[in-house]
Amino acid sequence: MALDTSWYTEEWAGQGAAISLKIRDKVHDEQSTYQRIEIYETETFGTLMTLDGLVMVTDRDNFVYHEMMSHPALFTHPDPRRVLVIGGGDCGTLHEVLKHPTVELAEQVELDERVTRASEKFFPELCESNNDRRARLHFADGIQWVADAPPGTYDVIIVDSTDPVGPAAGLFSETFYQNCFRALRPRGIVVGQSESPLFHADLIRSMQRSLKAAGFGEAATLFFPQCTYPSGWWSATMGGKNITLANFRNSDTAAGMFATRYYNQPIHAAALASPEFLRHPEK
Amino acid sequence: MALDTSWYTEEWAGQGAAISLKIRDKVHDEQSTYQRIEIYETETFGTLMTLDGLVMVTDRDNFVYHEMMSHPALFTHPDPRRVLVIGGGDCGTLHEVLKHPTVELAEQVELDERVTRASEKFFPELCESNNDRRARLHFADGIQWVADAPPGTYDVIIVDSTDPVGPAAGLFSETFYQNCFRALRPRGIVVGQSESPLFHADLIRSMQRSLKAAGFGEAATLFFPQCTYPSGWWSATMGGKNITLANFRNSDTAAGMFATRYYNQPIHAAALASPEFLRHPEK
Repeated sequence: MALDTSWYTEEWAGQGAAISLKIRDKVHDEQSTYQRIEIYETETFGTLMTLDGLVMVTDRDNFVYHEMMSHPALFTHPDPRRVLVIGGGDCGTLHEVLKHPTVELAEQVELDERVTRASEKFFPELCESNNDRRARLHFADGIQWVADAPPGTYDVIIVDSTDPVGPAAGLFSETFYQNCFRALRPRGIVVGQSESPLFHADLIRSMQRSLKAAGFGEAATLFFPQCTYPSGWWSATMGGKNITLANFRNSDTAAGMFATRYYNQPIHAAALASPEFLRHPEK
Repeated sequence: MALDTSWYTEEWAGQGAAISLKIRDKVHDEQSTYQRIEIYETETFGTLMTLDGLVMVTDRDNFVYHEMMSHPALFTHPDPRRVLVIGGGDCGTLHEVLKHPTVELAEQVELDERVTRASEKFFPELCESNNDRRARLHFADGIQWVADAPPGTYDVIIVDSTDPVGPAAGLFSETFYQNCFRALRPRGIVVGQSESPLFHADLIRSMQRSLKAAGFGEAATLFFPQCTYPSGWWSATMGGKNITLANFRNSDTAAGMFATRYYNQPIHAAALASPEFLRHPEK
């Protein structure tokens, strides 16, 4: 079958595959200084935001991504107080970070203010914590922000970026990780989205190597489903500064600390399991 | 963007979403007694087989599904000797089952012989074990096969079926599970594909209830990525007859028993972790 014009389609670059979502209406279309921001009402995925034609967030499935970008790192750290989010302009990661009662300061450094303004209007649930007294929203270059940060500023740095092309490419470099290492306190953790295990295994391996070369004693990748991202399977890779990434605090949401929809203690442990093809790269 | 006619597209029924794969050539098109069997050469997923327009198997990603349909159940059973595969006409599950040295007999009961004949021609890797002396290929109705099986015939029954509509609907019924329970030896396990956790959470819960109602003391769902199936996230649900499904033999492929590409011991444990929204169905 061929899809008619009532569908939004993203071709997964270089993968010979594409995902489509059935659209009711386009509700926003804007060319910002940095990118084209489009927002649609879909039939079954709620509101959809795309940047330069790539899916960033949908109402229906963003909970998995935002929970997995934040809770594993924050529950691995023994006492996360100061958290930096690089990118993350839809504010969903910030919202999850601020569920942690230990957090005293959560700074979000997004390049494109227009993404956040659009999210405030069209994804109000993701922006519910933007006015939390612990939140600081900055609109600036995250690479420069980390380079300028005084040593030992943060406990956790979350890199909630777009794909490693264009402005986001620098967020996957060894130099950037060196600056993260410096900007982290002892026992600090950096975590960045690291693309699809099926499509981008080389990027995951390269990111683990770059983190270690930048000084992080350990690197570990988290795996999780993400329906509307390429291949439907996604990852985030952590670097630990003098901290063991396999251990984490009792984070079971049954403890009642806060509500989640995907994350819980068994899921955290499960996300650390690497598929066989990534354990033995020579295969 | 709109996709031109060089793409194969499957609309995920009722989900307002679709996946597309770029096609080089259609190499087979046949209407069997039961369904339309089409085979394509894709640009990046290798060979693709569809049944009635739905993706069944691609070269690139079938390893996850076939390994997860077989190895968790077979490593949970203490000594699996006699295994039945219902459906599974592409023979990929049978191939994984026969990697287990304890297995003495592996019977495959597929309704549509034409699916297996097409797989032998276009997916020779999946059919490598069809001539194993322990393999028996039958072309018959799996529901009737299990109803007719003498009590205590099998150690593991694997239901590698299409979606729960049409001929496959009966493979998700309590009556079918009762017959599986009877056809299993003590400590036997049935495992069936149970669709997408994101799209079909109600089916997973209903399948767990039906297994217990049919006599199985325990039910447990395995979660895994599957790029070309709806939502990119898939599941299989096990029922255990007087056996604890959380325990399994040391199945780490590092032990060198046989090679896998996705499955290993940590992945087995990880697959048993339920996302929070499935642990608390009232949410």
